[in-house]
Amino acid sequence: MSHPLRLGIAGLGTVGVGVIKIVMQHGDMLRARSGRDITISAVSARSKSKDRGVDLSNFDWEDDPVALATRDDVDVYVELMGGEDGPALASVKAALNAGKHVVTANKAMLAIHGQELAELAEFKGVNLRFEAAVAGGIPIIKSLTESLAGNKITRVMGVMNGTCNYILTRMETAGLPYDEVFEEANQLGYLEADPNLDVGGIDAAHKLVLLSSIAYGTQVDFASAQLQGIQRISIVDIKHAAEMGYRIKLLGVSQMTDAGLIQTMRPCLVPALSPLGLLEGGTNMVIVEGDSVGQIVLRGAGAGEGPTASAVFGDVMDIARGINIPVFGIPAAQLTKSTPADSSGESAYYMRLNLKDKAGAMASASSALADAGISIDKMTQHSSDDNVARVLIVTHPTTGETASKAAQAIENTGVLELPPVVLKIETV
Amino acid sequence: MSHPLRLGIAGLGTVGVGVIKIVMQHGDMLRARSGRDITISAVSARSKSKDRGVDLSNFDWEDDPVALATRDDVDVYVELMGGEDGPALASVKAALNAGKHVVTANKAMLAIHGQELAELAEFKGVNLRFEAAVAGGIPIIKSLTESLAGNKITRVMGVMNGTCNYILTRMETAGLPYDEVFEEANQLGYLEADPNLDVGGIDAAHKLVLLSSIAYGTQVDFASAQLQGIQRISIVDIKHAAEMGYRIKLLGVSQMTDAGLIQTMRPCLVPALSPLGLLEGGTNMVIVEGDSVGQIVLRGAGAGEGPTASAVFGDVMDIARGINIPVFGIPAAQLTKSTPADSSGESAYYMRLNLKDKAGAMASASSALADAGISIDKMTQHSSDDNVARVLIVTHPTTGETASKAAQAIENTGVLELPPVVLKIETV
Ligand SMILES: NC(=O)c1ccc[n+]([C@@H]2O[C@H](COP(=O)([O-])OP(=O)(O)OC[C@H]3O[C@@H](n4cnc5c(N)ncnc54)[C@H](OP(=O)(O)O)[C@@H]3O)[C@@H](O)[C@H]2O)c1
Ligand SMILES: NC(=O)c1ccc[n+]([C@@H]2O[C@H](COP(=O)([O-])OP(=O)(O)OC[C@H]3O[C@@H](n4cnc5c(N)ncnc54)[C@H](OP(=O)(O)O)[C@@H]3O)[C@@H](O)[C@H]2O)c1
Repeated sequence: MSHPLRLGIAGLGTVGVGVIKIVMQHGDMLRARSGRDITISAVSARSKSKDRGVDLSNFDWEDDPVALATRDDVDVYVELMGGEDGPALASVKAALNAGKHVVTANKAMLAIHGQELAELAEFKGVNLRFEAAVAGGIPIIKSLTESLAGNKITRVMGVMNGTCNYILTRMETAGLPYDEVFEEANQLGYLEADPNLDVGGIDAAHKLVLLSSIAYGTQVDFASAQLQGIQRISIVDIKHAAEMGYRIKLLGVSQMTDAGLIQTMRPCLVPALSPLGLLEGGTNMVIVEGDSVGQIVLRGAGAGEGPTASAVFGDVMDIARGINIPVFGIPAAQLTKSTPADSSGESAYYMRLNLKDKAGAMASASSALADAGISIDKMTQHSSDDNVARVLIVTHPTTGETASKAAQAIENTGVLELPPVVLKIETV
Repeated sequence: MSHPLRLGIAGLGTVGVGVIKIVMQHGDMLRARSGRDITISAVSARSKSKDRGVDLSNFDWEDDPVALATRDDVDVYVELMGGEDGPALASVKAALNAGKHVVTANKAMLAIHGQELAELAEFKGVNLRFEAAVAGGIPIIKSLTESLAGNKITRVMGVMNGTCNYILTRMETAGLPYDEVFEEANQLGYLEADPNLDVGGIDAAHKLVLLSSIAYGTQVDFASAQLQGIQRISIVDIKHAAEMGYRIKLLGVSQMTDAGLIQTMRPCLVPALSPLGLLEGGTNMVIVEGDSVGQIVLRGAGAGEGPTASAVFGDVMDIARGINIPVFGIPAAQLTKSTPADSSGESAYYMRLNLKDKAGAMASASSALADAGISIDKMTQHSSDDNVARVLIVTHPTTGETASKAAQAIENTGVLELPPVVLKIETV
């Protein structure tokens, strides 16, 4: 039996408490599986007095996460505070510099500082693990880094923000407008302190760019990911999509092409009866395509105390078992800088145009589309109660660039009451 | 850079050739990911002269797999011949005894000899890995052993025989009887040399019992798995199930209860629009439930050159990276003997009774059901062209034991033309 593996846990919110419960409830099981005791030396959070529903009296308390991260009796620093910079980054750096392994669920920090932190961890010969940062309980990091290591990965896709998926499916099932469901999600505590992280697609894109790095051996590049949030999706779009056999999902796609790396996170139409289309509520799904394996689909809870703590613990157990592989699958020094590329290939697009109620509006819009070289597959027009003509279009296959240019051209004609909604129809 | 990892591959069929292709095509990628060269020292199969579509001239040839397994220039013995005993078992033992790591796709061998082989591997301090043995390209072994190591696993379920799933979905989509689709599958080369391994549920049960061992820390116990094949499923069952919103799948369920370990592999009705219900053709799906993670669903190709070779290579890469954990997740010496238990809990059952066309047949059947304490939720009667009255029944929730006893009682009355078909309706 090896000596115990001693954790220091910073952040005692949803995830931190989940991790503590696993240690408290499953001591024997963890020992059998890892060959050693897993213990907690000390913890940290902002408020020492808050009742967190677990007994912390056996653990030392540190007010300062940096002090926690560098304690002599901590082998693994578990960072569960969150935040791109601030105490999370400072303490993780301090831990790595002190030669401690780090486990974190912090996608925001890794999406921005992942390269630097990976280089530091590998220089120090310690682990930096982050299974919980992407898609909660779904074992996607390990699958991509280890199980699929014999594959050239060709595409990674996923629905990786449970809050957005909750909002979109709830709008459909309850027939409620975006604003109302957004407020509901807020009341339920589903939204981040800055809701734009969720509904703007930022949180999901943080996850996607981590997957890209592993998939293609490239440095994490959040800055060139193309983002579009779900804020402009209306119940009309959802209903119309459903009539045509589609559902709208905030879908991330990462693909390496000859032109470079495509990373998009945006609402798309997907076939209603496909695995992605059937995804309800807060559930996440990641789809990986590799040259040998074909397509693998992984589905599970993307957030919450238990699922996220489960992922954190997978990493802890790997460290207990002595596993140490490069943070992003190949040594950080060998990760290449990718060239960002625009979405390649053609596909059908869905457009919603809210036209001003004036003569010639439709004609101007149509000719702008035709000028852009877009031909129309289906079109329906509805007049709404607010004197706006709502035109719903499905185009014949075209490029994303052409679709955006056409939408811009229509907007430039001044006939639109609202900015156009343009959504790709993904064939998955 | 460490020294190369040198493979010896026995079996150059579908999977073996797939593995060789990965080594040949992806040398640079494998080196970047594992930090060392992966090479092939020697290979073995029955026929040296057969053209296998890959150039074998750079590898030594061994007629005898045991000789291959123990060569000085082999670090990892990759067993891809198949078969429960014979050369597979002999060569794997020889490899382990010689201190070589072993990677295999051979579920039949492991389901019977897994405990003995795991003990030997751990005694020798080498790896025995078998990701490819269960559900092809789906990373279920690693997910269960490593990613979910912080969970008490509560249930594992899966559709893990692509051939059966092909037959069942093809019967439904083409409206063809079992025998015809069976013949079709045979022509397509989908069936094992002994087709009963597939359609009898044996191959899928081999996989299920390996998952049980990891999930619950118990010794592999194939002998007490309860098996029922798909041979008696008729197109009538499939159609009737569809009308009620179900699909029939050969479903494996492994569950640890207070009474003991339940391991069943049998055709069941599952909701048509559930992930399991939507599974088409040769695709596999494994569902794992853990106390922290909730439910995780993994889907992918369960067989074929690429997917299976991908799984073999995941294991090879782990060995190249120096990962070595117990074969079934905890040391083999600590795996406990499980007590087999019958399916627990109540659920609805589907029954098909083919009654002899004689007076009182229905009355006898009904009273046998009533005597067994089974109440009927739905019943429809059809008379077929062959003078048999076909009665389709859905029961109110009852235990599996009661359902089987009732079916036996009906059979004992002598009113049945054919043995009854009794299928559990799974709520997944
Ligand atoms: N929640 C999920 O389902 C989920 C899923 C995947 C990933 N994650 C990630 O996991 C991390 C934690 O998420 P969470 O949901 O557990 O957050 P949370 O419930 O808001 O908890 C955050 C914890 O960090 C502590 N904290 C914040 N700033 C601190 C500081 N400056 N010094 C010391 N402690 C500080 C807080 O202390 P007080 O309690 O005293 O305020 C709190 O205990 C984040 O990176 C998040 O993105 C969460
Ligand atoms: N095929 C799949 O999709 C799949 C999926 C998962 C797991 N598996 C497992 O993977 C293993 C291999 O399957 P496979 O489909 O690749 O089988 P296969 O195509 O039938 O190939 C078997 C290979 O083993 C060789 N072989 C058989 N007996 C031998 C002996 N006594 N000595 C030396 N070589 C011998 C054969 O040699 P010859 O070619 O000279 O006859 C052949 O090359 C089996 O355990 C199977 O259950 C297969």
